Amino acid sequence: MAEKQPAKGTIRDTLLEAASSLMRELDTIEVGILDIAARAEVNHGMIRYYFGSKEGMLLALLDRDVGVRIRQLGALLRMDATPTEKMRIHLEGILETYYRIPYLNRLIQAMVRDASPERVHHIAEELLKPIAQAQHSIIQEGIAAGEFRKVDPKLFYFNTIGSADGLYSNRFTLSAVFGGIPGADDALHERYKAHTVETLMAGLLA
Amino acid sequence: MAEKQPAKGTIRDTLLEAASSLMRELDTIEVGILDIAARAEVNHGMIRYYFGSKEGMLLALLDRDVGVRIRQLGALLRMDATPTEKMRIHLEGILETYYRIPYLNRLIQAMVRDASPERVHHIAEELLKPIAQAQHSIIQEGIAAGEFRKVDPKLFYFNTIGSADGLYSNRFTLSAVFGGIPGADDALHERYKAHTVETLMAGLLA
Repeated sequence: MAEKQPAKGTIRDTLLEAASSLMRELDTIEVGILDIAARAEVNHGMIRYYFGSKEGMLLALLDRDVGVRIRQLGALLRMDATPTEKMRIHLEGILETYYRIPYLNRLIQAMVRDASPERVHHIAEELLKPIAQAQHSIIQEGIAAGEFRKVDPKLFYFNTIGSADGLYSNRFTLSAVFGGIPGADDALHERYKAHTVETLMAGLLA
Repeated sequence: MAEKQPAKGTIRDTLLEAASSLMRELDTIEVGILDIAARAEVNHGMIRYYFGSKEGMLLALLDRDVGVRIRQLGALLRMDATPTEKMRIHLEGILETYYRIPYLNRLIQAMVRDASPERVHHIAEELLKPIAQAQHSIIQEGIAAGEFRKVDPKLFYFNTIGSADGLYSNRFTLSAVFGGIPGADDALHERYKAHTVETLMAGLLA
């Protein structure tokens, strides 16, 4: 039976995935620790044990979700590819991220409103700035190479996250506009991704 | 002294403006009826008198905020202008709307989660669909005139509201990316508006 006891790392990961899946299924970031623990099939005391508090767990979830993207961006920046190719891959990645993690912006907004100053600082410096700066450097490369128009990378960044978030964070508007469908499925996501990448690239290309 | 007593219509409008200004100043839609009444300088019983409930008042606020835009859009559709000119004016209007009313999407999301089915239906049919359909018809005109690419108007709609909302709904990300500024001022808004309209038009124009 010993094999069935999850390892420490596994319980931590299982709790994060339980929180994440509940937020996705219920379309809200307001999920309780008892529900998260029940979904993870562990005692809710494990949340305090691994994360100190619910807030600590939510920050760990942000670290998990955004950390993957930051590592991918680092690899993308080192790729031997043109700025146009890099930006296209980057934009597709952002669209994928918001489709898989539609609660991302809402969770960030709630955390920075309610979390401790050190945690807010961590979110700004370790999670948001690296993404914005990676995009910034691709845009500067593209401008220098004559591939992109001279856009302000900061303004373009907000077009990017807004457009990417637009379809997925707004299930009700989606349903109203698309005649009653409950949310985006893979087929609609693929269409939205292709369409949005074209729109944003058209705004960028010289 | 009689002149100082606000007329009935005025009390109603004053309450709506009090709720709106508190949401803007506090950057949250979680404002209490006592605070709204205090800001409006009336007894909080007036909210029940004019709107039936807080939810009724929030719906009236949405009707007020979105209704202005729907009437403007109606006038825009009847204008003697090319689809390109109409779309440019329309997009500038959406950017203005989200700058002036940054709580708009959050309020819609909260209402459709919590409000009665009739109110949710009203929001979908009377507020969201007319905006999406007006934009839809400008895009179809533009495609027919050969001015626009054959984009899916529904997908473009979510680019539009997402991009427009992106800068203003996200004060903390704004602050992190722009080096600590507290929010968008008129100068940044004008830059963002010009930039975003260019980006979206580039995605649309044939």
